[in-house]
Amino acid sequence: MSPSPRLIIETLRWDEARGVLEMIDQRVLPARFERLAYDSASAVADGIRSMVVRGAPAIGCAAAYGVALEALRCRDLCAHAFAAALDEGFAVLDASRPTAVNLRWALEHMRLCLDALADAPPGVVAGRLLQEAHAVLAADVAANRAMGAHGAALLSDGMRVLTHCNAGALATGGYGTALGVIRAAVASGKHLQVIADETRPFLQGARLTAWELQQEDIPVTLITDNMAGHLMQRGEVDAVIVGADRVAANGDFANKIGTYMVAVLAHRHGLPFYVAAPLSTIDRRLADGAGIPIEERAAAEVRGFAGQQWAPEGVAVRNPAFDVTPAALVTALITERGVVPAPNVDSIAALFD
Amino acid sequence: MSPSPRLIIETLRWDEARGVLEMIDQRVLPARFERLAYDSASAVADGIRSMVVRGAPAIGCAAAYGVALEALRCRDLCAHAFAAALDEGFAVLDASRPTAVNLRWALEHMRLCLDALADAPPGVVAGRLLQEAHAVLAADVAANRAMGAHGAALLSDGMRVLTHCNAGALATGGYGTALGVIRAAVASGKHLQVIADETRPFLQGARLTAWELQQEDIPVTLITDNMAGHLMQRGEVDAVIVGADRVAANGDFANKIGTYMVAVLAHRHGLPFYVAAPLSTIDRRLADGAGIPIEERAAAEVRGFAGQQWAPEGVAVRNPAFDVTPAALVTALITERGVVPAPNVDSIAALFD
Repeated sequence: MSPSPRLIIETLRWDEARGVLEMIDQRVLPARFERLAYDSASAVADGIRSMVVRGAPAIGCAAAYGVALEALRCRDLCAHAFAAALDEGFAVLDASRPTAVNLRWALEHMRLCLDALADAPPGVVAGRLLQEAHAVLAADVAANRAMGAHGAALLSDGMRVLTHCNAGALATGGYGTALGVIRAAVASGKHLQVIADETRPFLQGARLTAWELQQEDIPVTLITDNMAGHLMQRGEVDAVIVGADRVAANGDFANKIGTYMVAVLAHRHGLPFYVAAPLSTIDRRLADGAGIPIEERAAAEVRGFAGQQWAPEGVAVRNPAFDVTPAALVTALITERGVVPAPNVDSIAALFD
Repeated sequence: MSPSPRLIIETLRWDEARGVLEMIDQRVLPARFERLAYDSASAVADGIRSMVVRGAPAIGCAAAYGVALEALRCRDLCAHAFAAALDEGFAVLDASRPTAVNLRWALEHMRLCLDALADAPPGVVAGRLLQEAHAVLAADVAANRAMGAHGAALLSDGMRVLTHCNAGALATGGYGTALGVIRAAVASGKHLQVIADETRPFLQGARLTAWELQQEDIPVTLITDNMAGHLMQRGEVDAVIVGADRVAANGDFANKIGTYMVAVLAHRHGLPFYVAAPLSTIDRRLADGAGIPIEERAAAEVRGFAGQQWAPEGVAVRNPAFDVTPAALVTALITERGVVPAPNVDSIAALFD
């Protein structure tokens, strides 16, 4: 199935008739637009680990559905076996990817919901957890739209805005964090041009961001990750906006590998550097970015792409999937509760009041 | 033909029996090791443009042979037609790639040689130009070895040295500029680890640098271009060394796209940033880097690699092949005449005294 222009991008959607979660397979976009179906926690965990779904908020939504699917799958078991199966489901989802905190946030949210239903029969619990997963997804989309509304004012008509990786509809329940702000600015009548870093090794920028923006006729220019500095030097970038996988209490944040380099360059060139992330991405238990675990992925991703290997056989590889950018390089953090200029421990804490 | 380990890398070699220049096809390494044969200026120009051969010094050597090949091809023409054919050969070679100044340097060198032979018959001129091309190649290798000898002292035992693109034997007549310094340091008994940026879009780091170093058992770790900042932040890089395609009179220099980003990051992290380049790469007619022409290559290179396209159809692309790093970010320039710390207009001029 080929997507039509102006397709509404439903990264995750619930198929009521089949009782399964459908997710767009982000490994094969834009060449193919396919949805895969998921019916258990372990299947969803596989989908997260293999990056069928990626992007911190989208992973959080997927994990919530993973818990609900496990409950639905086991609802005919006795209460004891049901609880054990759910515990196993939580554990397998929790282990699927380490850096994005939204995964943990969603699992804790679902656990609280489950605990509040302690005496209910499994069938009732399963139905309630599915409602909660729907609510997590809806809340994420609402947060994205609120971020867009708050952040759009930061982008002026005519700006050329650089983004790294994909923080769009595909990275979230829908609409997007960084791309949501761009969408909102464009919807308000501003003309923006987006410069998309291709984002090796998984090429989220080349494959996903470029494709998403094409769907909406937002002008996008693709570059390799090593070109951002040159364009800034030539005065061809006006602002940078990215998403985040985890924000520490002081505003340090982890995002896709390469974000730190872009932040350092924006700082050198006096360009505003914005981070758009919902509160579910803020991990207040971490004082600063040093404590954020950085996932190291398979060597094959760096040696080539999608089955094509160009590096010599057996060459050693590093493949950290994320890096940490210090808060000092962040011009403003855009959240669903408003814009936080030069975020620090106090201004971030105030978001939760 | 598959290369044996410890292969001597003859990027360009003259086949005396056939009277042709053979060049390793750098577009297909490391998957295939093939030499292609060239018998005219326009054929060599095609080889330069299509990046069968790349790297500023190697391009210079190839251009010198291109002139000699044209003279050999036309040596039975009358003097007038011979001169016209050579002029055409110079022009087509000059137009093949814009940024590397070694191409211009080699052509001017060959032109001076030709002018000194004004009254000689074409057959004699052709033989003399071929000797001169051999001399250009031999001088480049000698310059690389001298750079290695001078630069090796800058690298200490145990260092982890990051390099961008390929400034090795494949980028030169042999041995290499940046990798020549690394080779010389290793030959002197130091243990180094090389971190190679993959260097999108043409992947010279992943394909060529990784392969070259593997041939000599110099430990190499491959990363994507966006990982350098993270590794520096984690204290996993001790020094950076790169080559150059053109150095201006004040020490600003053009090199493969992404070099500027690495230089900015090295500066932020207090790491030495070395540039290794022969005097043939220094363009004293340019006051600073602003005057260096930056080649913009085909969009297809950024949309994918080697016939595989991963970006959506029709997406706009920028593809500058080089960027300019200001001299202020250069710890030292390593040349065949010695090491120039913090290069500036005076210290660079002094190299030519």
